[in-house]
Amino acid sequence: MTSSLYKLTATEVLELLKNNTITVEEYARSLLDRIQENDGTVKAWAHLDPDLVLSQARALDQIPEDQRGPLHGLAIGVKDIMDTKDMPTQYGSPIYKGHQPGSDSSAVAILRAAGALIFGKTTTTEFAVINSGPETTNPHDPSRTPGGSSCGSAAAVADFQVTLSLGAQTGGSLIRPASYTGVFAMKPTFNAISTAGSKPISPTFDTLGFFARSIEDLQLLADVFALHDDEPPRDIPLDEISVALIKTPMWSSAGPGTVSAMKQAAAILQKNNVQVEKISLHPEVGDVETLSRIQNVITQGEAQVSFLKEYRVDKANLAVEIREIVENTSNHTHQEMTEACTTYSKMRDMVNKVAEHYTVILTPSAVDEAPLGLDDMGSPTFNTLWTGLHMPVINIPAFVGANDMPVGISLVSPRFRDQQLLKTAKVLGEALLSHGGWKARV
Amino acid sequence: MTSSLYKLTATEVLELLKNNTITVEEYARSLLDRIQENDGTVKAWAHLDPDLVLSQARALDQIPEDQRGPLHGLAIGVKDIMDTKDMPTQYGSPIYKGHQPGSDSSAVAILRAAGALIFGKTTTTEFAVINSGPETTNPHDPSRTPGGSSCGSAAAVADFQVTLSLGAQTGGSLIRPASYTGVFAMKPTFNAISTAGSKPISPTFDTLGFFARSIEDLQLLADVFALHDDEPPRDIPLDEISVALIKTPMWSSAGPGTVSAMKQAAAILQKNNVQVEKISLHPEVGDVETLSRIQNVITQGEAQVSFLKEYRVDKANLAVEIREIVENTSNHTHQEMTEACTTYSKMRDMVNKVAEHYTVILTPSAVDEAPLGLDDMGSPTFNTLWTGLHMPVINIPAFVGANDMPVGISLVSPRFRDQQLLKTAKVLGEALLSHGGWKARV
Repeated sequence: MTSSLYKLTATEVLELLKNNTITVEEYARSLLDRIQENDGTVKAWAHLDPDLVLSQARALDQIPEDQRGPLHGLAIGVKDIMDTKDMPTQYGSPIYKGHQPGSDSSAVAILRAAGALIFGKTTTTEFAVINSGPETTNPHDPSRTPGGSSCGSAAAVADFQVTLSLGAQTGGSLIRPASYTGVFAMKPTFNAISTAGSKPISPTFDTLGFFARSIEDLQLLADVFALHDDEPPRDIPLDEISVALIKTPMWSSAGPGTVSAMKQAAAILQKNNVQVEKISLHPEVGDVETLSRIQNVITQGEAQVSFLKEYRVDKANLAVEIREIVENTSNHTHQEMTEACTTYSKMRDMVNKVAEHYTVILTPSAVDEAPLGLDDMGSPTFNTLWTGLHMPVINIPAFVGANDMPVGISLVSPRFRDQQLLKTAKVLGEALLSHGGWKARV
Repeated sequence: MTSSLYKLTATEVLELLKNNTITVEEYARSLLDRIQENDGTVKAWAHLDPDLVLSQARALDQIPEDQRGPLHGLAIGVKDIMDTKDMPTQYGSPIYKGHQPGSDSSAVAILRAAGALIFGKTTTTEFAVINSGPETTNPHDPSRTPGGSSCGSAAAVADFQVTLSLGAQTGGSLIRPASYTGVFAMKPTFNAISTAGSKPISPTFDTLGFFARSIEDLQLLADVFALHDDEPPRDIPLDEISVALIKTPMWSSAGPGTVSAMKQAAAILQKNNVQVEKISLHPEVGDVETLSRIQNVITQGEAQVSFLKEYRVDKANLAVEIREIVENTSNHTHQEMTEACTTYSKMRDMVNKVAEHYTVILTPSAVDEAPLGLDDMGSPTFNTLWTGLHMPVINIPAFVGANDMPVGISLVSPRFRDQQLLKTAKVLGEALLSHGGWKARV
């Protein structure tokens, strides 16, 4: 029985651990066996030390029952841009090969204090900026990318190598790989989780989040990170839920998988008596060119500051794309930057106001299925808007593309309604998953 | 001669080092002697290892001349909220007693790569949040505070123990201690210097900056941190400079030292044919109660997230004020927080627009002279406004209060005009310093 523990969700495992039906060590061994079996293909880990995992698991088993934390024994993969005191943290960069931080990042420390088993470091692209690099493959088709930049965290959860993982999104690095690998992901409201001890790119956009294989599992992490709404979240019956279907100004880049997923999602919801209203954000966010320019001006302007350290310390080992950002080869000005910040700030308020008229927004998670090959890790075009708007997003992995690969859709709420979004995503997710066609499998 | 090297400014020392008139080791020994003499009273250091200082100094002396950095051999004190790879970083907190980070913060790494001698860690209050704690005294009167929270960095520079130091300001932790200790300080434009590897409090307000004993010395650091304006800074003759004198809505809390400093400053500038115009910011920033509420809502709301880690890991060793922030005993809501952010964002644009009509703003640096005792480290009331507005500020230590202690005034520019502010501050500073009455002395 213990050999198949890896298949369970975090919520299921937690129950077995609480009952003392299994030990943390047994659970960890099941995951390590699973990893040993598939790691040659999936390659989701930047650092994984089975001996450390087992010794930590045994230490957790020694904790008296009444002193165990809410995540006691749950295995969590950590994107390798977040510091860990007991494992190297290499940010996907040759500059930091073997680099050992002196403490845990804020998020890792909070999980560890809650009893989580920090399992290993998952692969990322160089500083989570570059769009290729790791050899991590998509567990559903090794000839395809799992998506960037939180590739390892998405692939490890999708492949049942861990139940939960941490990732981060500046453009679309949580929601896109979740869509590509057929798992749930949550990008909470901006700065609802501290990014301290995580390598920054663009502090106005950088957002920590997590991957899981169920909404209940996302909920476990949301609670440990103390995400809370002003109003307690409500159970809203399907026929009282109103959905704003927003194709976004980027809709012309949607591929057939995403076009079909959005159409199916609307149909399923309507069949379930959910009110679905198509709305445009054009007055609020403008056209795709303007939007994309504003996003680039802010994120590159901030990244110029974030990477001055590496540029000064070891320029030769910095990717040329990052060097060019520090050198500002795009010739962005501070004037453009402050104007872009003002525009985004206004957009943030306007779109949040629009969103408050609905229970939730339905919008694409990615352009289409995961692209073929590992060199192109996909486009964040459908995600960066929401990241910059600071609104919480959950990917629902409900649909299937032309190549039998998963395609997700995003549910989005106003800022700081993360708990309500989780509740709504649970109800809508059940409807979408039972008719969307995607089934978790490896 | 080497025994008095500690008295020189960084710019002067740099010249002697470049000429090979002195070695870095000789310079370091002069500073160490000075520290040994006064440390029993001033107590500016949270960590200082003379052996490490001297071995690093000798290593710098070994670097071939053509490979030396722009700050070669300059001694820099670092506020102990910024990570250093070769010294403990304790954030003024018992939780982090003896804590050794695995790498330098972004700012420290940039200084080290420029050839600086990272001298030691300067005292701070607990996580730079609390307003008392360190035993650091004001070098001009040991019965008075040097001001919080960058107390050690200000005191060390004021006492000629180092020429330069790094600090950080969320409210007024750079400009206020600079005013209290009679040194220059610069708070650059928000996010012009990366805060990575520095303990965050409120990411929307946290700003890194530096202390020095001359504008030229501030300039050295501004250049190494790549601060740059869109337009190259100009040498503006005194009679073409226009100054907006802004007493701010907090003016009623100004003590006699500050009232007199502002009056004197205006008179000196006018005597030098500088155009001085009194303006009010009331339409832009409202009254002091509203402003203060907005600032608290944002900084405490963000600090609630920043300190969840320490709360979960070791609540018992966290100051009660910080525990209360994490527990949100003030009952701030997210709604208030997002509204406050919107209001501040609008204020930021409006005040910057006002500021663009003048060469520079003249405004108070502190309530008055440094208070008596070490328990009250002073109020940031005149500083938090500008921190949240993200505008660069320089303290000019030109005036004297009723107790013969220094009183500074602030010069403020629109965002991302840091280099122009330095140029303007140099010209205006000379006039103010030669007639203001304060003379650097110990």
